[in-house]
Amino acid sequence: MSRQLNEPVDAALVPRFAGHSTFMRLPAATSAEGLDVAILGIPWDGGTTNRAGARHGPREVRNQSSLMRRVHHVTGIAPYERLAVADLGDLAVQPIDLMAALQQIEAGIAAICAAGALPLSVGGDHLTTLPVLRALRKADPGRGRLGLVQFDAHSDTNDRYFGDNPYTHGTPFRRAIEEGILDPARMVQIGIRGSVYAADEHQWARDQGVRIIYIEEFARRGPEAVMAEVRTLIGSGPAYVSFDIDGIDPSMAPGTGTPEIGGFTTREAQAMLRGLAGLDIVGADVVEVSPPFDLGGMTALAGATMVFELLCVLAGNAGGPPA
Amino acid sequence: MSRQLNEPVDAALVPRFAGHSTFMRLPAATSAEGLDVAILGIPWDGGTTNRAGARHGPREVRNQSSLMRRVHHVTGIAPYERLAVADLGDLAVQPIDLMAALQQIEAGIAAICAAGALPLSVGGDHLTTLPVLRALRKADPGRGRLGLVQFDAHSDTNDRYFGDNPYTHGTPFRRAIEEGILDPARMVQIGIRGSVYAADEHQWARDQGVRIIYIEEFARRGPEAVMAEVRTLIGSGPAYVSFDIDGIDPSMAPGTGTPEIGGFTTREAQAMLRGLAGLDIVGADVVEVSPPFDLGGMTALAGATMVFELLCVLAGNAGGPPA
Amino acid sequence: MSRQLNEPVDAALVPRFAGHSTFMRLPAATSAEGLDVAILGIPWDGGTTNRAGARHGPREVRNQSSLMRRVHHVTGIAPYERLAVADLGDLAVQPIDLMAALQQIEAGIAAICAAGALPLSVGGDHLTTLPVLRALRKADPGRGRLGLVQFDAHSDTNDRYFGDNPYTHGTPFRRAIEEGILDPARMVQIGIRGSVYAADEHQWARDQGVRIIYIEEFARRGPEAVMAEVRTLIGSGPAYVSFDIDGIDPSMAPGTGTPEIGGFTTREAQAMLRGLAGLDIVGADVVEVSPPFDLGGMTALAGATMVFELLCVLAGNAGGPPA
Amino acid sequence: MSRQLNEPVDAALVPRFAGHSTFMRLPAATSAEGLDVAILGIPWDGGTTNRAGARHGPREVRNQSSLMRRVHHVTGIAPYERLAVADLGDLAVQPIDLMAALQQIEAGIAAICAAGALPLSVGGDHLTTLPVLRALRKADPGRGRLGLVQFDAHSDTNDRYFGDNPYTHGTPFRRAIEEGILDPARMVQIGIRGSVYAADEHQWARDQGVRIIYIEEFARRGPEAVMAEVRTLIGSGPAYVSFDIDGIDPSMAPGTGTPEIGGFTTREAQAMLRGLAGLDIVGADVVEVSPPFDLGGMTALAGATMVFELLCVLAGNAGGPPA
Amino acid sequence: MSRQLNEPVDAALVPRFAGHSTFMRLPAATSAEGLDVAILGIPWDGGTTNRAGARHGPREVRNQSSLMRRVHHVTGIAPYERLAVADLGDLAVQPIDLMAALQQIEAGIAAICAAGALPLSVGGDHLTTLPVLRALRKADPGRGRLGLVQFDAHSDTNDRYFGDNPYTHGTPFRRAIEEGILDPARMVQIGIRGSVYAADEHQWARDQGVRIIYIEEFARRGPEAVMAEVRTLIGSGPAYVSFDIDGIDPSMAPGTGTPEIGGFTTREAQAMLRGLAGLDIVGADVVEVSPPFDLGGMTALAGATMVFELLCVLAGNAGGPPA
Amino acid sequence: MSRQLNEPVDAALVPRFAGHSTFMRLPAATSAEGLDVAILGIPWDGGTTNRAGARHGPREVRNQSSLMRRVHHVTGIAPYERLAVADLGDLAVQPIDLMAALQQIEAGIAAICAAGALPLSVGGDHLTTLPVLRALRKADPGRGRLGLVQFDAHSDTNDRYFGDNPYTHGTPFRRAIEEGILDPARMVQIGIRGSVYAADEHQWARDQGVRIIYIEEFARRGPEAVMAEVRTLIGSGPAYVSFDIDGIDPSMAPGTGTPEIGGFTTREAQAMLRGLAGLDIVGADVVEVSPPFDLGGMTALAGATMVFELLCVLAGNAGGPPA
Repeated sequence: MSRQLNEPVDAALVPRFAGHSTFMRLPAATSAEGLDVAILGIPWDGGTTNRAGARHGPREVRNQSSLMRRVHHVTGIAPYERLAVADLGDLAVQPIDLMAALQQIEAGIAAICAAGALPLSVGGDHLTTLPVLRALRKADPGRGRLGLVQFDAHSDTNDRYFGDNPYTHGTPFRRAIEEGILDPARMVQIGIRGSVYAADEHQWARDQGVRIIYIEEFARRGPEAVMAEVRTLIGSGPAYVSFDIDGIDPSMAPGTGTPEIGGFTTREAQAMLRGLAGLDIVGADVVEVSPPFDLGGMTALAGATMVFELLCVLAGNAGGPPA
Repeated sequence: MSRQLNEPVDAALVPRFAGHSTFMRLPAATSAEGLDVAILGIPWDGGTTNRAGARHGPREVRNQSSLMRRVHHVTGIAPYERLAVADLGDLAVQPIDLMAALQQIEAGIAAICAAGALPLSVGGDHLTTLPVLRALRKADPGRGRLGLVQFDAHSDTNDRYFGDNPYTHGTPFRRAIEEGILDPARMVQIGIRGSVYAADEHQWARDQGVRIIYIEEFARRGPEAVMAEVRTLIGSGPAYVSFDIDGIDPSMAPGTGTPEIGGFTTREAQAMLRGLAGLDIVGADVVEVSPPFDLGGMTALAGATMVFELLCVLAGNAGGPPA
Repeated sequence: MSRQLNEPVDAALVPRFAGHSTFMRLPAATSAEGLDVAILGIPWDGGTTNRAGARHGPREVRNQSSLMRRVHHVTGIAPYERLAVADLGDLAVQPIDLMAALQQIEAGIAAICAAGALPLSVGGDHLTTLPVLRALRKADPGRGRLGLVQFDAHSDTNDRYFGDNPYTHGTPFRRAIEEGILDPARMVQIGIRGSVYAADEHQWARDQGVRIIYIEEFARRGPEAVMAEVRTLIGSGPAYVSFDIDGIDPSMAPGTGTPEIGGFTTREAQAMLRGLAGLDIVGADVVEVSPPFDLGGMTALAGATMVFELLCVLAGNAGGPPA
Repeated sequence: MSRQLNEPVDAALVPRFAGHSTFMRLPAATSAEGLDVAILGIPWDGGTTNRAGARHGPREVRNQSSLMRRVHHVTGIAPYERLAVADLGDLAVQPIDLMAALQQIEAGIAAICAAGALPLSVGGDHLTTLPVLRALRKADPGRGRLGLVQFDAHSDTNDRYFGDNPYTHGTPFRRAIEEGILDPARMVQIGIRGSVYAADEHQWARDQGVRIIYIEEFARRGPEAVMAEVRTLIGSGPAYVSFDIDGIDPSMAPGTGTPEIGGFTTREAQAMLRGLAGLDIVGADVVEVSPPFDLGGMTALAGATMVFELLCVLAGNAGGPPA
Repeated sequence: MSRQLNEPVDAALVPRFAGHSTFMRLPAATSAEGLDVAILGIPWDGGTTNRAGARHGPREVRNQSSLMRRVHHVTGIAPYERLAVADLGDLAVQPIDLMAALQQIEAGIAAICAAGALPLSVGGDHLTTLPVLRALRKADPGRGRLGLVQFDAHSDTNDRYFGDNPYTHGTPFRRAIEEGILDPARMVQIGIRGSVYAADEHQWARDQGVRIIYIEEFARRGPEAVMAEVRTLIGSGPAYVSFDIDGIDPSMAPGTGTPEIGGFTTREAQAMLRGLAGLDIVGADVVEVSPPFDLGGMTALAGATMVFELLCVLAGNAGGPPA
Repeated sequence: MSRQLNEPVDAALVPRFAGHSTFMRLPAATSAEGLDVAILGIPWDGGTTNRAGARHGPREVRNQSSLMRRVHHVTGIAPYERLAVADLGDLAVQPIDLMAALQQIEAGIAAICAAGALPLSVGGDHLTTLPVLRALRKADPGRGRLGLVQFDAHSDTNDRYFGDNPYTHGTPFRRAIEEGILDPARMVQIGIRGSVYAADEHQWARDQGVRIIYIEEFARRGPEAVMAEVRTLIGSGPAYVSFDIDGIDPSMAPGTGTPEIGGFTTREAQAMLRGLAGLDIVGADVVEVSPPFDLGGMTALAGATMVFELLCVLAGNAGGPPA
C-alpha cells in the first residue's frame, strides 16, 4: 500500500471545537497500512493499584489534542509533511480479565508493527506498556533488546502486589527486563520521587543497571544536562520512550492515579522530549492520564502536547519532507 | 445510492469508553446519501445573549451518547434495524460572522435534504433552528408550512435585542413565522416559565395563534394529557420538533445558558417525546446543551437520551424493519 | 424623602453578564430612605454548627439574580412599578465575635425599619434571622408578636449546642419564641425532615403550638392544600417569612451546609411562595445559600428566584402601581 | 461474647466535621463478634464494564454519613438503642485479580455470618453482591433460597460480556439464580429503565419468574402500591435487599458508573425502604456509589441515608430496646 | 471637575466577602471625570475563535480583586494615595454584532480619554484591545504611534480566519499596525509559544520589526534581563501594556480559551510588570480571563493581581502622593 | 506505659483506597501515652477573617495521606521504625465560641505534652497555633521561649481586626510574642508576600526582631541558602515549626482561605523542610488547608506530604531505630 500524507482538519475553516474528535484532528484510519506512525489509544487500566480512570485517557487526550496546530514553534518541524500519520482508534481491550487484556494489547500492536508503522500510543495505565514492548520485541527479534527513556514519578520495577500479582502498573519494567525485552544498561528513569514502601525498593533496578535520576538530581542539573546523559546512555540502539504523565507536577497534571508533589514542569518536560532528537525511537507512549481526576482538561492537554512533541521528534528523525 | 443499515459499535466487544466518539457509536459518514436520518452537530452559539458555550454541545453529546444502547426499553423499537442512520459530523460553521453562519447552517441542512435524509441535529444555540427550518421549507415548498412542537423554558418569539438585532436565540420562531416557514396555528410550546421582560412578552405569539403551555399548566395536567392536545393540534401535517434542553429543570440539565428553575423532569420529557409517535416529523433538534456550564456531563447525557428518544419515534413511524 | 421607583438595568441594552452585580440589577443604595423594600445581604455564618460558607451567600445570589427579569410570568406583577426597591448592600458584620455580630445585624435592620422600609434579606446562616426578628419586633412594639412561615428541612428550635451555646443556626426560633418575638400559635414550618438527635427533638416546639408540616405530609397534600392551611393559621396578623434554602431538595440546592435528601422541589417552592399572597408580611429572608458547596451556581439561582417570588408577593399586596 | 450497644459520637459535643470518619460516626470494630449488624465497606469495582470508581464508595459514604443523626424522624426508631452496630471497616479486596477478589469478599462476609451478625455493606460495584449472597447462602443452608428486593436501573441478569466473561456488574443476579442462591419467584427489581442491548434482554429473568417493575410502571403506581406488592411477593421467607444507587435519578445520584435518566427520587427511595418493614431481611447493601463521578458528595449522602434507612428497618424488625 | 482620591472599603471593618463587588473594592463611578485611572470591564468575547467565555471575565476579576489590599509589599507604593481611581463599571457591549461591538468599545474608551483618565481595562477577549487602541490613538493624534508591551502565549498577528474574517482575537495587533496605531519597532511580545499553523506564521510580524521573545528565550534569560531589553526597546515614547492571561502557565491560569502549556509563572509575571516602572504607559489591559473554564477562581485572582501590579506601576510613575 | 512502634496498614495487602482513613494509615489512638509523636487534627477555623473551611482540613489531609508510603526516598528514613506514632484523632473543639475554643485546643495539647509526646497537628486555621504554643510553653516552663520557623504567605503579626478583636488567624504570632511564648530573635518567616493593608504592616514584627524573608528574597537565594540562615538563626534552642499551606503557590495549594499568587513550589517546600534537620523541634503543624476551596484534593495531598516530611525530620533527629 502506498503511503499517503494526512493533514489535520484546517482550523482556519473548521473551528477547533467542531468535527469528529480524533488525535490532532487527523483522519481516522482502520488499518496501519501505509502509515509511518499510528497514533492509537489503549483505553485500559486494569493494572491500577489505587485510583482507576486511565481507561478514559484516550478520549480526553483526543479532545484536547484539537488545540494542537501543525508546526512546532521551536524546531519548525511540520510532522505531517514528513510522516504519514493517522488516528488508528482505540484497541478494543476488555476491562474484566487482566491476562486476556494483555494479549489483546499485544496483538493490536503486533498488527501495527506488521504494517510497518511505529506505534505512538495513549494509555491507559502503565501496565499497557508491557504488552506494547512485547509486541515490539517480537516484531523485530534481530533488533536486540530495547533501551528505554522513561519519564515518571515511579520506577515501576516492583515485583509483586496484593499477595502474588506479578502484573500491575507498578511492575511493567521489571517484567520487561526479566523477559529480555529491555536492556537495563540502556534504561533511564527521570523524575522519580515520592515516599517508598521500602528503603531498598529501587535496589533491584539499580542492580540491573537501570539509571535512576531522582527529581532532586534533575532539579540540580536541569533538562539539558540530563538529556545529554540520556543520549549518551541510550546510544544508537533502538529505544522506546514512555511518558508517564505523573512525572509532571500534579499542579500541572492532576488527572492521574498516583500523584506525587514536587514533579517537573510541563516546560521542562517539553525541553526533555526535544532532547530526544536523534535517538532511534521504535515506539512511544503517554500513559496514566486519568480524566475522572483531571481538572478542566489540564492533564489531557499536557498529554496531547507530549504526543505532539514526540511526533515532532519522530518527524525530525525522519529527515526532510518525503519526495 | 442504496440504503445501508448501520449498527452502533457492539458494547459487548468494545467497551463504551473506547473507540471514536460518534453519536450513538454509529459510523461516521461524510454524506447523507443513502441515509434515512442524518444525526449531525451544529456547533455554533453566535446567537446567545447571555452565557455562550452551546458551541461545545455536539462533542459532549457525542461522548455521553456512548451510554445509549440499541433498543428502546419501553417500545422495544430497535431504530437501527428500521432506519439507515449515521453520524454526519458537524457542520463547519464559523463563530465570528453571524449572518454568514446562518447561511452555512442552511446550506448544510439543504444538502441533507437533497440527499433525501431527515436531519436530527444537536446544537448549538436555539438560533440554529432558524436556518434549519429555512432549509427544510425550501427543500419541499409544496409541503406547506410546518408545525412545531417546542419543548422549552422560553418562547423565543421576541423581536429585537441590544438595539436592533433581529437574530438571537430569543427570536428564531418569530422570524420563522414571519418568513412563512412555520404555521403558528400548528405551533405548541411546552414548559414556558421564568420571569419576563414585559407583561405582554408572549402576546405577539399568542396573537399569531401559537399555543403556549406554561409549566404551571403542564404540572397540573401531566405529560399524557398535554401530548394528546399536541397531537390534535399538530394533526397530520408536517412538523418539526425542537427540544431546548433548558425546558428540563436545571437540576437535571444545568449545562445551559439561560436556566430557569421549576422545569419538567427528564422522565416527563421522555414521556412527552414518546407521545410524538405518529406525527409526521420532518426534522428535529436538541439545542442549548452548553458543556462549560454542565456538571459531570449530566446535561449532555440528557441531551443524548433525548436524541435517542427522537430517533426511536422516527423509527416507530417508519414501520417495521425494512425488507 | 420622596419615594422613587427604580428599574433594573435593561437587559435588552446591557447584557446580563455585564455591569455591576447587584440584586436584580437594581441600583445600589446607601440608605433605605424612600424605599418600600430594601434588599440586602447579611454575609455572616458564625452560627453554623457544621459546614460554614453562607457568609458568601449574598455575593453569589446577587450574581445569579442577573437572570431575573422584570415581570412575574404567572401573576403578571411588575414589582418595580409598584414598589420602590433597591439593593442596600451588605450589612458589615464581623465574622469573629458572635455576640457582637448579632448586635450589628440587629442595628442594621433597625435602621431599615426606621426608614420605613421592609427588609428582604439574603443570608447568611439561619441564626441571622434572630436579630432581624428582634429589630422588627422593637421597631413596632404595638404590632404584637409576629407569625412565621418557615420553609426549611430543620425546625431550628433546639436549645443548646456544644455544651451551653444558646445561639447557633439550630436555635433561632426557640430564642425568638422565648423572647416574645414570635407567636408560636401562628408559626408553621414546612418541609421538616431528616434524622434527629432525639425522638422528642421537636416536642418543645409542638408544645408551644408550632405547626410542623413534615415533608411526608407535604408530599401527600401538595403545596396548594398546605398553603391554604398556612393562610388560615397565619391569619391577618403580621408575619415574617423565612426561606431556608435547605428546604429544597439538595439536588436542586446542593450549596448549603446541612443538606437533607428528600426535600421539596423548586417548582413546589415557587407554588408555596405564590400562596403567601394576601398575608401581612413585615419582612422576609432567604438563608443558608452556601456558595463553597454549590454546584454551578444552582443554589444561588434558586435563592435569587425565591427572592424575586417574595418580592412579587410583596408587590402584589401593595396593590396597583403607585399614582 | 456479650452484646454491647454502641452510640455514634455525640454531635452536640464533637462537631460533625471532626473525628475519625466511620459509618454513622460509630465505633470502629475489628470483629463482628457481639454485633447484631456489621456495617462494612467492600471497596472493589473490578466487575465494572464502563466507568470504574465504586472502589472509592465506602470512604465517601463514611464521610457523608456524619450527617446522619440518631433517630428516624418518621418512625421514631433509634436503631442504636435496639441493635448492636459498629463499623467493621473495609474488606481487604485486591483490585487486580477478579476471581481472587470474589473469594476474598465471600470469606469476609462468611466471617461476619459466623459471628452471628447481619452484613450491611457499602460497595463497590454490583458484582460485590454475588459473593455476599454466596456467603449468606452457605452460612445457613437450611434457610433455603433467598428472596431479593433490588432497587436499580438495570436488571443485572445478563449472561456474558466482552466475549465470555461470566462475572461483571451486569451479571450477578443471573449467576445467583443459576447457583441456587436466589429464588427467582421471590425476586423483584424496581426502577428498571434505559435502552437495552436487545429486545429480549430481560426475557431470561422473566422466564425464571423475576418480577421486573419498570420505572414507567413505578411512576404510575407510586412507592406505596409497589411496596405492598413487594411485601406480598417476598412473603415471610428470608430476603436480601440490594440498593444500586443508579436506581435514583442521576440528578440526585450523579456519582455512579452507568447513569440512566428518568429514575426515582430520593424521597421515593426513602418511602420504598420504609416499606420493607416486617420483611425477614438477612443482609443488605448499597452499591455503585462512585465518588470520582460524584458532585459535591451528593451521591454519597444519598447512599449514606439509604444505609440509615435500612438500618432503621432492621431495628424496627428487631422490636423494642433490648432489656 | 476636581480630583478626589478614593480608598477601597476598609477590610478591617467590612470583611472581604461582604459588600458590593467592585474592582479593588473601590467606589463605583459613572463617569471618568476627575479620575486619573479608570478601571473598567469590557465583557465581550465576540472575537473568540475557539472557547468563548471571556465575556464573564470582568465580573469574576472584580470578585477576586476583593483579596487585594492597599499597599504593594515590595515597592511600598500605595496607589490610592497617589491616583484618583474608581471602578467605572462595564462598557455595555452587545454580544451579537461584531462590528457594532468594536464601535461600542471604541466609543466607551474615547469617553474616558476625553475625561482625561487613563483606561485600565479587564476583558473580554484580545480583540477588545484593538478598539481600545483606536480610541487612544485618536484621543491624542499628536502623541504618535504607540509602543506595545504584550504578555501572551500568542502573537495575535494573524491575518484572516474562517475564510475572510479580519477581526478575531488572533488578529488585533496586525490590524493595529496596519492602521498606524502601533509602531512595530516599539512592540515586544513575551512568552510566545505553542504549535503554529504555519512555519512562517510570525514572519509578517517579524518583518514589521516586532520583537518576539519566545518562552524558551524567556526561560533562559529570566524576567529581569528581558525587561531591561523591553525598557530599552520601548524607550521614552508612549506605550500600551496588554496582558493576555494565557501568557501565564495554564496550571496557574487555566481559565482561558486557548491554553498553551509551558508558560511563565505568576511570580515571573509580577516581576515583569514591576519592570515596567518608568515607562510612559498610556493605557493597559488584562484580557482573556474566561471564568467558565476557570478552576476555583484561580485565573481571576491572577488577573486581579496583575491589575493591581499595573496600577502600582502607574502610581509609581505618578510620583509621590499629591499635595 | 511502654512504647510500641506502629506501622501503617500494608498497601501491598490493603489497597490505598480501602480501610479506615487515618493519618498515614496509622492506628487510631485515644491517648498519647506511649507515643513519641502524636499526629492529630484541630478542625477549627473560628479565627478566619475571610473564607472559612479549614475546619474540614484534618479529614481531607487524612484521606490524601493514604498516598504516603513508609520510607523517605531521599534520606532513606523510615520514621515508623524510629518513633512511636499514631493518629490521635481530632480535638473536639466547638465552632461557636472563640474563647472557649482556644481553651479546648490548649487543653488538648497540654494532655499530649503531659503524656510525653510531641504534637504534630493539622489545622484548622492559623489561630490554632496560638493555643498550641501556649500549651507547649506551659508544659516545660524551664525550656525558655521557643523559636519559630514559619512557612507562610502572611506574617500573621497584625494587632486587631474588625474593631477590637485580638484573636484572628492574622494575629497569632503577635500574641505569642506578647505573651512571652516565642522569642522574636529566633523567629523567621519565609515566603511572605501579597499586598498589605499598610506600608508599615510588618514593622512591629521587625521591631521585635523577627526575620522576614519575602518571596522575592527567597526566589533570589533558593531554599538551601535560606535554610542555612534559618538553622543559624534558630540555633540549638527549642523551636516550633508552623507550615501555613498558603505559603505554597495557589496553583499547587488552591484550597486555602487567603491565596496569594507567586508562592514557593511544593518542591521548594520539601527542600526547606528537609533543611530543618538537626533543629530541636518541640512541635509542628500544617494549617489552613481548606477543602471547600480545594481542587481535586491537591492541597490536602500537599499538606499530607508536608506532614510526612516533618515526621521524617523528627525521626531523623531521633537517631537510629530504637533498640
